[in-house]
Amino acid sequence: MTASTLKLDDQAVSTRSVLILKFEQIRKDSESICAPLETEDYCIQTMADVSPAKWHLAHTSWFFETFLLLPFQKNYRCFNSAYDHLFNSYYLTHSQPFSRPTRGLLSRPTVAEIMQYRAAVDEAMIELISNAAGEQWREIEPLIILGLNHEQQHQELMLTDLKHIFAQNPLRPRYRDLPPPPGQQSADLTWLPLDEGIYEAGHRNAEFGYDNEHPRHKVLLQAFALASRPVTNAEYLDFIDDGGYSKPGLWLSDGWTTLQTNAWFAPLYWEQRDGEWWQMTLGGMRPLDHNAPVCHVSQYEAAAYACWAGGRLPTEFEWEVSVADLPVKGNLRNSDYLQPVAASDDSTLQQCYGDVWEWTASAYAPYPGYRVPEGTVGEYNGKFMSSQLVLKGGSCATPADHIRGSYRNFFYPKDRWQFSGIRLAKAL
Amino acid sequence: MTASTLKLDDQAVSTRSVLILKFEQIRKDSESICAPLETEDYCIQTMADVSPAKWHLAHTSWFFETFLLLPFQKNYRCFNSAYDHLFNSYYLTHSQPFSRPTRGLLSRPTVAEIMQYRAAVDEAMIELISNAAGEQWREIEPLIILGLNHEQQHQELMLTDLKHIFAQNPLRPRYRDLPPPPGQQSADLTWLPLDEGIYEAGHRNAEFGYDNEHPRHKVLLQAFALASRPVTNAEYLDFIDDGGYSKPGLWLSDGWTTLQTNAWFAPLYWEQRDGEWWQMTLGGMRPLDHNAPVCHVSQYEAAAYACWAGGRLPTEFEWEVSVADLPVKGNLRNSDYLQPVAASDDSTLQQCYGDVWEWTASAYAPYPGYRVPEGTVGEYNGKFMSSQLVLKGGSCATPADHIRGSYRNFFYPKDRWQFSGIRLAKAL
Amino acid sequence: MTASTLKLDDQAVSTRSVLILKFEQIRKDSESICAPLETEDYCIQTMADVSPAKWHLAHTSWFFETFLLLPFQKNYRCFNSAYDHLFNSYYLTHSQPFSRPTRGLLSRPTVAEIMQYRAAVDEAMIELISNAAGEQWREIEPLIILGLNHEQQHQELMLTDLKHIFAQNPLRPRYRDLPPPPGQQSADLTWLPLDEGIYEAGHRNAEFGYDNEHPRHKVLLQAFALASRPVTNAEYLDFIDDGGYSKPGLWLSDGWTTLQTNAWFAPLYWEQRDGEWWQMTLGGMRPLDHNAPVCHVSQYEAAAYACWAGGRLPTEFEWEVSVADLPVKGNLRNSDYLQPVAASDDSTLQQCYGDVWEWTASAYAPYPGYRVPEGTVGEYNGKFMSSQLVLKGGSCATPADHIRGSYRNFFYPKDRWQFSGIRLAKAL
Amino acid sequence: MTASTLKLDDQAVSTRSVLILKFEQIRKDSESICAPLETEDYCIQTMADVSPAKWHLAHTSWFFETFLLLPFQKNYRCFNSAYDHLFNSYYLTHSQPFSRPTRGLLSRPTVAEIMQYRAAVDEAMIELISNAAGEQWREIEPLIILGLNHEQQHQELMLTDLKHIFAQNPLRPRYRDLPPPPGQQSADLTWLPLDEGIYEAGHRNAEFGYDNEHPRHKVLLQAFALASRPVTNAEYLDFIDDGGYSKPGLWLSDGWTTLQTNAWFAPLYWEQRDGEWWQMTLGGMRPLDHNAPVCHVSQYEAAAYACWAGGRLPTEFEWEVSVADLPVKGNLRNSDYLQPVAASDDSTLQQCYGDVWEWTASAYAPYPGYRVPEGTVGEYNGKFMSSQLVLKGGSCATPADHIRGSYRNFFYPKDRWQFSGIRLAKAL
Repeated sequence: MTASTLKLDDQAVSTRSVLILKFEQIRKDSESICAPLETEDYCIQTMADVSPAKWHLAHTSWFFETFLLLPFQKNYRCFNSAYDHLFNSYYLTHSQPFSRPTRGLLSRPTVAEIMQYRAAVDEAMIELISNAAGEQWREIEPLIILGLNHEQQHQELMLTDLKHIFAQNPLRPRYRDLPPPPGQQSADLTWLPLDEGIYEAGHRNAEFGYDNEHPRHKVLLQAFALASRPVTNAEYLDFIDDGGYSKPGLWLSDGWTTLQTNAWFAPLYWEQRDGEWWQMTLGGMRPLDHNAPVCHVSQYEAAAYACWAGGRLPTEFEWEVSVADLPVKGNLRNSDYLQPVAASDDSTLQQCYGDVWEWTASAYAPYPGYRVPEGTVGEYNGKFMSSQLVLKGGSCATPADHIRGSYRNFFYPKDRWQFSGIRLAKAL
Repeated sequence: MTASTLKLDDQAVSTRSVLILKFEQIRKDSESICAPLETEDYCIQTMADVSPAKWHLAHTSWFFETFLLLPFQKNYRCFNSAYDHLFNSYYLTHSQPFSRPTRGLLSRPTVAEIMQYRAAVDEAMIELISNAAGEQWREIEPLIILGLNHEQQHQELMLTDLKHIFAQNPLRPRYRDLPPPPGQQSADLTWLPLDEGIYEAGHRNAEFGYDNEHPRHKVLLQAFALASRPVTNAEYLDFIDDGGYSKPGLWLSDGWTTLQTNAWFAPLYWEQRDGEWWQMTLGGMRPLDHNAPVCHVSQYEAAAYACWAGGRLPTEFEWEVSVADLPVKGNLRNSDYLQPVAASDDSTLQQCYGDVWEWTASAYAPYPGYRVPEGTVGEYNGKFMSSQLVLKGGSCATPADHIRGSYRNFFYPKDRWQFSGIRLAKAL
Repeated sequence: MTASTLKLDDQAVSTRSVLILKFEQIRKDSESICAPLETEDYCIQTMADVSPAKWHLAHTSWFFETFLLLPFQKNYRCFNSAYDHLFNSYYLTHSQPFSRPTRGLLSRPTVAEIMQYRAAVDEAMIELISNAAGEQWREIEPLIILGLNHEQQHQELMLTDLKHIFAQNPLRPRYRDLPPPPGQQSADLTWLPLDEGIYEAGHRNAEFGYDNEHPRHKVLLQAFALASRPVTNAEYLDFIDDGGYSKPGLWLSDGWTTLQTNAWFAPLYWEQRDGEWWQMTLGGMRPLDHNAPVCHVSQYEAAAYACWAGGRLPTEFEWEVSVADLPVKGNLRNSDYLQPVAASDDSTLQQCYGDVWEWTASAYAPYPGYRVPEGTVGEYNGKFMSSQLVLKGGSCATPADHIRGSYRNFFYPKDRWQFSGIRLAKAL
Repeated sequence: MTASTLKLDDQAVSTRSVLILKFEQIRKDSESICAPLETEDYCIQTMADVSPAKWHLAHTSWFFETFLLLPFQKNYRCFNSAYDHLFNSYYLTHSQPFSRPTRGLLSRPTVAEIMQYRAAVDEAMIELISNAAGEQWREIEPLIILGLNHEQQHQELMLTDLKHIFAQNPLRPRYRDLPPPPGQQSADLTWLPLDEGIYEAGHRNAEFGYDNEHPRHKVLLQAFALASRPVTNAEYLDFIDDGGYSKPGLWLSDGWTTLQTNAWFAPLYWEQRDGEWWQMTLGGMRPLDHNAPVCHVSQYEAAAYACWAGGRLPTEFEWEVSVADLPVKGNLRNSDYLQPVAASDDSTLQQCYGDVWEWTASAYAPYPGYRVPEGTVGEYNGKFMSSQLVLKGGSCATPADHIRGSYRNFFYPKDRWQFSGIRLAKAL
């Protein structure tokens, strides 16, 4: 068993030496993601939601420096005090962050300087993990694990942000060569029922989970059925061909306004060339794979499709309860497709993990009894519980050891640059 | 018993003649609300959310013309075919509505012409109610009742919109003289607990209810306590004086952005003059009433206050279950204060109905099993179930016979021009 | 000779009693312009450049109150001190004006109140004119004459603003019935040459002129020729039909950007219905009059047309020197067409006065030796000498006794809501 | 005599071999300007007016490829056909340019690829210059000279754009070490009169001049005096300290609006730290040099300062006629200060060339008889003759062999990122 295959949050193995291995692996993964990049590619920000790759590399280091090294590592000397302003993302109770939409206007620090920053932080962190006094360890360890999970989130964001960056360029550069999709047919869609009842949702506490997955609590579900697999590109094309983008009756009001303002006519990254649909991938432009799950749709498009198809989106609890017994496997980042592919999954309930984040109908809200953690890291999750929606299951860009059934991702309903797709539900 | 005191949705009395009385009363109420206005006051639109009073008067008539007269009243001649474009609000499956943010750019039709439109619609509607064939009645009657409830909603909007209009004017004109507040002290705030359990929420079907209140369904609540009364101006001032508007740690992220973008420092309509707080009311500028419920706050402010006060906002179900046995009475429009006042309410649970719409923590979402009604009126409620939040209980501007426990009002968390306030909850 | 035909600035007749007659006539003219309006029509502002008619009526009164009555009329009691903020247009050294783009958000004061304001100002002004002490008269008289010219400028603006207001309304209401155009053919366009030489431009001082027309000064012109008449709608249609709006090579860079941003495809107020061109007029929608001068074009369109036609726009001095000996007559407001018409003019140089303001190539800049007047009225003209262009000759909405050869009107090159047209020039 | 000191437009020496030397030198200069940059610095665009350095490097090559190589160089193979879209600036009659405000969103082509593009163009150009057939040479040579002047303009823009880029970064990086200013005192300001008369302005035709400097023509000037030197930082500080930025009466109306919208309180790049004024330079933050000419002011600020100081800005002709006999020397780019410095100039009329571009009162308009050149290069200058103002004299960033008395630079009155300053004039 190597560090890279360790289940990050498995408390049983989290001795300090194992934690160092994890730390080194995850930190190295961020840099490996950037390996195919030219220096220029690290600097670009194509919309407010996107951050430059070099910002991600610096910010994740700032997180360790700010929440671990400066408070806990005696004699640690701040790498560059100006970085606190530049690389604080949104921790307003800590300091004033640099304006988010202008992260792409900074040529300095250079990529090389940020790599030096990373190296300095890594060295000090390993020192801290190795030598922190026992009485501090109880406080330090969860923050380190939080920092590593945080870094993994940014790994996925680096990939989605780079995809956006390359897609805006008329040259449509490829991030790197990707393996071809496996070429399966998509399975027939079937409906998997669940009876009315009281179930449980939320984190089980055996491994790491974010504050927003707690506390585990009872939920009351009415009888419903969940689709056996996500909606495919072929199915979504039927919706388009049936005029889905020009029928206001299918759309939420905010969705219709968004569609019109932005002149949406298909998922993000789709282009029609000579009558054929293509899509931008991290491997460059490719013909649309009709069997793969549809991807890069907003929740508005997901809801409109569901309306057209006579279904609805599942709630986060319907999803979570349905997949409770499935193993966490699928087309996640480690499969290296970096693009949703047709199911190779022979479960009854297919492709729940990986491929595409699945939009739910659930507002991202606190669970009953949720408590914001103390201190500045309390800003991590809770303050975003407004106007966003929960997505479940991870995507082809999610680290394999970073996802679980209780994981709650969240984006605004208009967001499309994540690997987000659709699974239907229906009442019974 | 006069028509004006009839409970609108009491099916037992909805014979046609009673419906005519109701129809006449509600239609007349809309015009009575406008009686204090100068012609100029009917025309103004001070922000996209606000509509001119004359537009409300026309649109509510368009509703009856479009959904009742044109489809069902043989020989009815459309009053003016150009009005369909002008006075359609958002029924996109029916026709293309005139641009909402520019409703205030139309000097014509004049107020007098719109009054003629109303008269023509009223006359034809009474004819339709009186003479519609029995077999059509089953289809017609619910649409008429919907139209009357629709008109009552616009009555409240007329008042909130007029308040906004008058408040933007440096002359701070008064809509009309209002009675002085009763001058009570606010009662002490106590906490009313409810045990964990499975309860029911949603409309009971004995009277009219909107589609969004259906179906009645089981909800699982954890133990919690609800505050005995809304937060008062005095309490909210403590939050302001404690720097509430300058501590980002208290705020939702979107809320903090909104606060900063709009330079919020107090509820809407508050002004400080020579060190004293005043507030704009429909009766003009008045010194702040410290005992009255705080009003014209966004959900962001409500949530920040709750955070500061160590509580949280209730969910819509916590609210609904808690008030299930209370009679529907309070400072509603018929009390004629048109401004929240200190409680004269001696219930254990006070001021649930009237005074202020109470923000909940609940996203405005479909109930399990909710179905959008067939046809164009299906656009009435369902398509707005995105990014908005549920408010409960009605306000000082709500018609007394228009509110009930299952009533779900909904606005965006940033909205402040409604009579919206705060009631706290807390976990037990 | 009646007051209405008096040449306003004829010093010989400006005894006080004649000035009173002029004052009364011009003040009454403003109200006569509003006579066809409904109360609602007075309140609307359809873009930032437009002001509500009632604002014009109040502002012109504020001008007399502020610059004459308050400083010079002993015992004058300010009509309403809040009006200073509301009706100050842009005199920043006097007080803080109410935000210009939101003048249409004020329902109060009502039209009736503004009429009372006008009456009070009129009464006090006539008292002031009658009784001002001799030593003050030298200071007062030019301010009164400025105020009357100011009011005449607003009379034209009321008409252009009302046209814009009615044109935005899908009902296309007519301001009032207008006489039909005279139905002439447009004359052939010929070229009138002028030799190189030193000429004079600027105001001659025999009558009233604005500060911006001073001082009269020498100008050096190279040989050129001026078109005998403005460009007609028929000629402009040829430009459109030749793809004028889709050939960037014809346009100034700023013009092309403006065209694309605003999706211009024809002059303002033109509409194509069933293949025929119509245009909105103050008398409602009318078929395009092919012989009339083209109107409601920006300077960008004027310059693009000139480029396409192989000419250029004249400078203000070429225009002024060419028309120096022409009598001031033409289709001005008193002709009552309120729309440009084909020439009935038998001069060699036709339609210089009236019909359309003629865009020049000249930036609106100070004449050599220009001095801004002392005091707040110094803000009248000089501070606008940036990024605007000079227009000459008056329009069908200009009072006949308000125009002269040295008159310099000025607007931004993008502006189209004035009665603005094109006369070509060319080098020799 | 080396190529770098050759006067570019001296026709006497423009044999082909000399032209090759010039070509090589100017092309190399562009790359030398970039020598201090990190790869990241080449990619950033901090506002719409700014272009990334790598874009400048590519666009100037595109100019030669598009207007020389593709039409004239047989067998030239387009380097990359996608570059035409990316690196066309604004030649709309040629092709559709990539959106200007998003030039900074392109990470590819990389800097290295653009350097390869430059090398390929250079090689082919030298081949073309060497071997073009005689009959083509008359057509080719002026285009090459235009291309070299074009490249020199972009050299200045690279420096001003880089300054803007570094100044937005909180780290305030320095472009490179700069020599210290010479440390002179500024001379006393005196006034140099010129009599009324007819003078000549425009290009003399002995060397290269842009189309916009033609034709040379007579101008009539009234008597005036020109200040002997530009306004200094010390003088401008007096204006600031006297409340210049808070007195609307000093400002043009558009200027005041711009000041308020952008919260201007001092020239661009000024910062107050602990009560002292500093300014960003290409050599990083430096204390304000009180003796140096004020720089990075808009024309609005220049005009407000002139109003406050009791003067005015000169017209472009007053400036040009006054300096007609001065040699072209001063603090231009070759002096290597890259920042305005106090005069070392002992002329009566000082610092006319170099240091700061001097705002004039003249709208950028065609000279009498101006003709737009044929073909796509006709878009070079003429289409920008709208709403911009003429600046004279070059700056510390202008190549020494690129400026002359008839040179007309032009920017919008709000623009501040050029090295733009103020010289006063006054009437006599």
